[in-house]
This record gives sequence, C-alpha cells and structure tokens, in this order.
Amino acid sequence: MLEPRETLPSLADLRAETCARIDAMFETLLPVPDRPQARLWLAIRHATIGGGKRLRPLLVLLSGRLFGVAEEAALRAGLAVEAIHAHSLIHDDLPCMDDDDLRRGRPTVHRAFDEATALLAGDSLLALAFGVLADPETHPDAAIRSELVCSLSRAAGAAGMAGGQMIDIGTPGLTLDLAGVTQLQQLKTGALLAWSIEAGAILGRASETNRRRLALYAQCLGLIFQIADDLLDCEGEEAKAGKRVGKDEAAGKQTFVSLLGANGARHKARELLDEAVAHLAPFGADAALLAEVAEFALSRDH
Amino acid sequence: MLEPRETLPSLADLRAETCARIDAMFETLLPVPDRPQARLWLAIRHATIGGGKRLRPLLVLLSGRLFGVAEEAALRAGLAVEAIHAHSLIHDDLPCMDDDDLRRGRPTVHRAFDEATALLAGDSLLALAFGVLADPETHPDAAIRSELVCSLSRAAGAAGMAGGQMIDIGTPGLTLDLAGVTQLQQLKTGALLAWSIEAGAILGRASETNRRRLALYAQCLGLIFQIADDLLDCEGEEAKAGKRVGKDEAAGKQTFVSLLGANGARHKARELLDEAVAHLAPFGADAALLAEVAEFALSRDH
Repeated sequence: MLEPRETLPSLADLRAETCARIDAMFETLLPVPDRPQARLWLAIRHATIGGGKRLRPLLVLLSGRLFGVAEEAALRAGLAVEAIHAHSLIHDDLPCMDDDDLRRGRPTVHRAFDEATALLAGDSLLALAFGVLADPETHPDAAIRSELVCSLSRAAGAAGMAGGQMIDIGTPGLTLDLAGVTQLQQLKTGALLAWSIEAGAILGRASETNRRRLALYAQCLGLIFQIADDLLDCEGEEAKAGKRVGKDEAAGKQTFVSLLGANGARHKARELLDEAVAHLAPFGADAALLAEVAEFALSRDH
Repeated sequence: MLEPRETLPSLADLRAETCARIDAMFETLLPVPDRPQARLWLAIRHATIGGGKRLRPLLVLLSGRLFGVAEEAALRAGLAVEAIHAHSLIHDDLPCMDDDDLRRGRPTVHRAFDEATALLAGDSLLALAFGVLADPETHPDAAIRSELVCSLSRAAGAAGMAGGQMIDIGTPGLTLDLAGVTQLQQLKTGALLAWSIEAGAILGRASETNRRRLALYAQCLGLIFQIADDLLDCEGEEAKAGKRVGKDEAAGKQTFVSLLGANGARHKARELLDEAVAHLAPFGADAALLAEVAEFALSRDH
C-alpha cells in the first residue's frame, strides 16, 4: 500500500516563505549597534532587508531538496549568496559603474547614504557571506562548509562574477559577438545562480553525475534569466521593474536582444528552457519546481 | 647533553624571505588570462605583487612558530590576510574615500587603471582571501580552515575593519576623544593585525590561555603601529613613506598625535611596547622575534 504523498507547496508559496525567512535571518544577523559606525549597518540593512526576489536562496532550497538537505542549512547558504548578490548590486550601482539611482523601487545605497558608505556596505556583505557559510550552524561537517566557501569564492571573484563585470565595463570599444555576450553573462549573472544550485548539491553530498546534471541545468537557467532581463530592459516598464530600463541600448551595449532581435531572443530562451527541463529529467517529479523556476524566469514581467 | 640549538634567522632575514615568498605565491595564484577580463587581473597584480612590508604574513609565521605550525600553512593564511589588506588599501585610496594618487611609491590602482577596475580588483581580493583559507592546501583539518574563515570574516567586515573605516569617514562633524580614536584604530588597522596573530594560534591549536595572551599582545601592537603611523604622517618624508603625508592634519582628523602631542604619543607607544613584551613573557625565548616586531613598529621611518 502506498503512503499518501506529502502535499508539496507551490512555487509561489515557497517563494513567499523564502522571502520572509531570508528577511528574518538578515534582521537577526544585522542588529544596528549603538556606535559611531551604526550608519554602516543601516546601509547594509537597506540593501538586504525587504527587497529582492530571493531567487538564489530559493534555488539552494530546491536543489537541496533533491538530496534531503535540511531547510535550515539550505537557507543559510541561501543567505550567504544573497549577501553576495546584494554586495554586487550596491557596487554595480555606484557612479563609477552603472551610476543608478533606483533599485528595487528604492534609492540605491549611495543615493540613500553616500558613496563611501555604499562601498563599505558592499565590502561588508562580501565578508559576511563567507563567515555565514563557515559557521558551524550552517552544517556540522566542516569539510562541507569549506567546500561551500571555496566554491563561492570562485563564483564571486575574478574568475566568476567580478570577471564578468570587468568584461561588461572594460570593453567600451570592443563589440561582443554572441559567444562573447554569452560568456559575459555566464560569469556576471550566471556564476551566482549556478553556485546556488551547486550549494544544494554540496550540502546534500550529491554524486558527480548529479552535480553535472544540475550544472548544465544551471547554465541554461542563467542564460534564460539574462535573456528575460534583456527583453525587460528593452520592453519593460520602469514602474514594474523597480529600476531604470532602456539603459543597455542607451549605453550601446550588445545584449541577446540586440544580437538576435526580440523574437530571436525569445526563441533562444524557449530552446534553453527545453534543454534545462531535459537536464532535470533524471530527477523525476522531485525536480518539478526547478523546472517551474525556469518557466517563471521566461514569463516574469519584472 | 643538550642538542645544539638551531640557529634562528634574524627578523630582517625572515622579513625579506616572507616578502619573496608572498610575492611568489601571488604570482602563482594570479596568472593573467588571455581574455577580455585580463585588465582585472593586471590591476589585482599591481596591488599585490612587489610591494608592502608583508607585516601580516610575518605575524602569522611568528605566532605559528610558537605552536609548531608548518611554514606553508602559515604563509597561506598570511597570503589571505595580505589579500584583504591590499583590498582595503585599493578601496581606501578611491576618490570617494581618501582620494590618494600614490601608494607604496607607485600610482594607486584607480590611477594606474580606473575607478571601476579598482573597485572590482578590491572585491576580487576580498573573495580570493576566503577561498585561499578554505582550500585543503591550507590545512588538512577542515574545522581549522572554517575557523580561519569565520574569524577573518569578522575581522574584515562591519564588526571589524570596515566598521573602523566607517567611523573614520562617517563622523566629519564629530570630534573623537582618545577612547574614540583608540576604538577606531583597533578596528580599522588593529583587526587584521590581531587576526594575523590569532591565525597562527588557530593553526597551532593553541590553548585558550595562550590565545588570550597573544590577543593582548596584538592589541598593544596594533596601537603601537598606529601611533607610529600618525607620527610618520605628521613628521615623515613622502619619499620614504611612499605615500602622501600630512593628510590627517589637512583633513582635521583626530589622531594619537593631535590628542597627545608628538612627545605624548611617543611616550604612550613606549608604554604599550613594555606591555606587549610583558604579555609575551610566558612564551620565553620563542617569542623574541614577536617582541622585536613591536620594537621595529616603533622605530621604523616608513
């Protein structure tokens, strides 16, 4: 006789719950001290609490579920990658980078505070992320904690996200082709998304085969998200996006949309969606929500 | 019959050797890729190779020697803290912070490259440090690697160095008293120096008592260094310092020298030196070079 199958929460429920729990964790982790440096903590809180889709923590949770990872462990790894994501947004928004005033519908950190405070808030969040991962509360096995730190260091640093940002800003004269734009995005936005999915596998001691499957899924997912972002940047509404739109075109940047056209980019994203789902097939129904994330990535309007 | 005592290298020899080995390790770790992001790696190399006193790695080595730590392990921890130190100098020199053109006698990173590249180079070095510590090459015991990561995260982040930088820049209207300046410096420059000494103790599984002794020594050492820095800033020569001098006074910043006078600051530093040496007494002759570092801190002219 079969046991009645436990009812799984919907993706929307899980997203809402993840948002609430990550907010609560940042609250606990970031009490404002009664000291001259309080301003720094306020800036960090501005950048981390009450905003964002919390996609990366959600991915750690969903990937971890495939291997029976405890929610608490997955959420702590999710908090770490969210801290790095917030760090990258603060620094990306600075005048010497994208010079943006608006983020998630609120003033960017250097607008709400000042440039020096934003710089230090971004730095602090980067340091915080690794401390959270290495803390015994994340996982009882120190080897797993160390592996999380090593892999996130690669994903965030010069060989990962920061390298992607460098390509993005460092080649004003150079016109990237499709391979170039793909590599840029795989580093700039793909590296942290891929790490989020890898983190669940590390925490769950997944086999090499399963890690490879998830890495291929993650690669597709990152590109789907970027194509959707490019489409939103050229067609989206500022009010829904919560940030300035149309800036890629204004900056003369090559994107999937400028290289393939809006229809071509949409077609490419649908191909990638099929491929992403195919990589998940061996996990069966357990991976249904990961497949749904890829569909959501393509259909979102902000 | 006593074994003939192994001849210990002098502090000067050990400093020179540490400089050479840290340079060589950064060289190995930072090959320039043949890719569009090569500029980022060049900026990181500019900030890390061929400069600096390598005081922090030296402190890890000397502290580690008290507990029989392998040189290779101590140097890797030293490389990590030196990466964080270089990160903080790059970001400190940016126009939104101290706006400096000269560092170690060479153009600062944002002068030699540009602000965005300097921002990303600093970020990359911060991420790199934690990856180096968590790598199994640093120590076979993952629990020790994790403890190094946790403690360095605290020392570098908002509760440590970044918090100190925030106090330094964030209170233009507020005049700090001696207690305030002491706290600022214990965070801004003291936290990484203290971590360097702590790292040797962590790697060597030192007892709580010995850790406490070394922490008290480290606290004195950090203040001695800062007082010496303040004295150099008001009396030093730019050519020897390799950086702009007289900037504290120009910025109207409170320092140990402005609060105590040059003679008063020198007296305070000598008191701290006696205290530092007293905390080392239980380690006997093994700690002679750590005592010498404290003396060197006070007598240096750059």
